[in-house]
Amino acid sequence: MHFTSERSLDGGVVERAFVLGEVPGILWTPPSASVSAPAPLILLGHPPLGLRRMYPRLAERARHVAADGYAAATIELPGSGDRPRWPALDQARAELRGAMEAGEPVGEGLVDALVLPLVEKSVPEWRAALDALLALPGIGGPVGYSGGVISIGIRLALVEPRIAAAVLFAGSLVPAALVEEARRVTVPLHVLLQWDDEGNDRQAALDLFDAFGSEQKTLHANMGGHTGVPQFEGEAAARFFARHLK
Amino acid sequence: MHFTSERSLDGGVVERAFVLGEVPGILWTPPSASVSAPAPLILLGHPPLGLRRMYPRLAERARHVAADGYAAATIELPGSGDRPRWPALDQARAELRGAMEAGEPVGEGLVDALVLPLVEKSVPEWRAALDALLALPGIGGPVGYSGGVISIGIRLALVEPRIAAAVLFAGSLVPAALVEEARRVTVPLHVLLQWDDEGNDRQAALDLFDAFGSEQKTLHANMGGHTGVPQFEGEAAARFFARHLK
Repeated sequence: MHFTSERSLDGGVVERAFVLGEVPGILWTPPSASVSAPAPLILLGHPPLGLRRMYPRLAERARHVAADGYAAATIELPGSGDRPRWPALDQARAELRGAMEAGEPVGEGLVDALVLPLVEKSVPEWRAALDALLALPGIGGPVGYSGGVISIGIRLALVEPRIAAAVLFAGSLVPAALVEEARRVTVPLHVLLQWDDEGNDRQAALDLFDAFGSEQKTLHANMGGHTGVPQFEGEAAARFFARHLK
Repeated sequence: MHFTSERSLDGGVVERAFVLGEVPGILWTPPSASVSAPAPLILLGHPPLGLRRMYPRLAERARHVAADGYAAATIELPGSGDRPRWPALDQARAELRGAMEAGEPVGEGLVDALVLPLVEKSVPEWRAALDALLALPGIGGPVGYSGGVISIGIRLALVEPRIAAAVLFAGSLVPAALVEEARRVTVPLHVLLQWDDEGNDRQAALDLFDAFGSEQKTLHANMGGHTGVPQFEGEAAARFFARHLK
């Protein structure tokens, strides 16, 4: 892990850009983090639109997370941002856009082509980032995962024992294989659902919530579309992490 | 409104039993309530099992509500507790028990016979209690309604303009006429759903949530049966009321 820049934000939060192998990322640490009192870590997931484009929202989430005493970190997804293009992924995305614009149903084959390679390639990268981040002084466990592509969250929650709790954004573009993996997830989950999400099928999202194997899982459904999550849900997610990471 | 007893609880909360006409009730007021700073009021709904039997849970809810600076009040439902028996209601309840024990579906006719008379008779009583309670010094609006028989909550939220927000417990034994009324409810709602509620059909409860006309409505679904609502949901409901009643 190689740090490429560092700056201080309001509230004593330090933001550092890093590169791990070919993967760029950002780490935010709260002023309270120290070697004797390492901060728990929350991984910030995001849609595959590039870290640069997602930065304002990620930095806002990181500021809230840091104000609660956690470190926060994120990495660029494969094929996004400054990373090399991934023609197969671009192709699947173009097909998805086409199907949605035409109002056609999105077939299982397309969902698989869009999501499975992203999960296969990115989850090991998140785990490598976790190795490097937890080796830093002032950062400790337990680890939470929050948001982003829900299929990545499912796989991470399943295979990465250091993930102790996850906040997931319910989606319906989830490959059947990942729904099956969801049945074996056991960590506490806090799942957000936008009731009128234009890009997600509500029943499929409810079925996915039902599928999760976790004994402790809560669904918070709110009115409105994909980007309309009410502000108070940020606080609710923070209280969920406080119950499970502190 | 005639007070029949008064006692002080921990934290300076005053608990007073009252009778309004033939309807007994309980009022809890926080120490902060005064003529110059009247406390907002939360009406505590409950299942028709009698105030005496429900008292421990109601008093616990009232203590939390009072700690947040609200007054809390509840009244006995018709046919319950020390009020005169209501043979038609007892009959419908016996039929419901029989159907549930036999694992038979609960027909619409039975749901109507069980719920509609209770709504028709109790809602005017809650409104009369509201008149009397809001006339007391130290108690003011806005008013919240919390819990109990969801059909009573639906009707109250629809017809009583002083109700500014409601926390409802999602049920499926809701007459079709009340589902239609739910479409015209507009106050902010916070709806609790127990995912594996043995007495409620999950899909019907989700359909009822969908039906509510309120622009601001949130569903919190948790694992477990009817009485398994996690403790943290009490805090979530308190924050909902804080957003809308303060």
